[in-house]
Amino acid sequence: MDLEEKVVAHEPIYDGAIINVERQTVELPNGEKAYREIVHHSGAVAVMAITPEQKMILVRQWRSPIARPTLEIPAGKLDSRDGDDPQHAAIRELNEEIRLHPDHLERLAGFYSSVGFSDEYMTLYLATDLRPVQSELPRDKGENLNIRAYSLAELKTMVKNGDIEDAKTVMAVWRFEMMQQKSR
Amino acid sequence: MDLEEKVVAHEPIYDGAIINVERQTVELPNGEKAYREIVHHSGAVAVMAITPEQKMILVRQWRSPIARPTLEIPAGKLDSRDGDDPQHAAIRELNEEIRLHPDHLERLAGFYSSVGFSDEYMTLYLATDLRPVQSELPRDKGENLNIRAYSLAELKTMVKNGDIEDAKTVMAVWRFEMMQQKSR
Repeated sequence: MDLEEKVVAHEPIYDGAIINVERQTVELPNGEKAYREIVHHSGAVAVMAITPEQKMILVRQWRSPIARPTLEIPAGKLDSRDGDDPQHAAIRELNEEIRLHPDHLERLAGFYSSVGFSDEYMTLYLATDLRPVQSELPRDKGENLNIRAYSLAELKTMVKNGDIEDAKTVMAVWRFEMMQQKSR
Repeated sequence: MDLEEKVVAHEPIYDGAIINVERQTVELPNGEKAYREIVHHSGAVAVMAITPEQKMILVRQWRSPIARPTLEIPAGKLDSRDGDDPQHAAIRELNEEIRLHPDHLERLAGFYSSVGFSDEYMTLYLATDLRPVQSELPRDKGENLNIRAYSLAELKTMVKNGDIEDAKTVMAVWRFEMMQQKSR
């Protein structure tokens, strides 16, 4: 089946610091017209950081879209400092957020966070063999964080009762469970 | 640590069909000002539909934000037809997209897809005991889909080589792997 939608017009809506928004007019395979609202984003990285005690490190931070704090794995946007290298961004975010450097860093998967309306692409890493960083990078203005490590049992309870309600963090908990099942 | 950011101004940017965009001026805990760009979304559901042959059903559809097709688990936005009931929306989407009704439907998790800039909340379900629907609901205009079921081995390869690159679908594959590990 032909799926392609041809873009017949672009209407710029908003050119922001983090996102750009546009409205496209597309021609469907059957010839009809439709509209698509699109949020462009530079991409992001997220890191499952696992301690020697087999705990996963989460950060608590304020999230404006939902007007309250969340518990999440360390993550951040790709920016010009990274030269678009997600691995470098992952190491930088671990330094900025939890002040640790991973001697082992492994790409687990890459995916679009919400491909229905956005092109934000996230790369998820596993970081182990963590040690304190030699020099601390400055945090973003307004990057206020609480940091703690949690066992798998704690994490599973937190997903169940809604204390963890961030997509990449739920993914990380499931992956962590899979890793622990396999190592038994 | 006090994390709260107080909203001191809202600037509406765009009032669309699927998304609303606003820019907030916030006061950080240290008293400084910052800006937050926020994409409001009505929420969504996604469904891991597992056949009796232990295969997962994926749909291929065009995705405007990345200008190509993706392979994803069935999913859709919450809308007024659901009265905000995600379980009802899950059943509706399975009907619209794959023409199957689940005799077993189980909530696996709920999460914000990309909480850094959006309040889109997704509820993920597991659907089994699938049977053909008695009456087919109409599809959205421009909802062109290809449908196929895949084994876990196929799915894992597709995540690895990037044929699956949608967050909720990667989550579903990992959950499927966990289910199959446990049932062994």
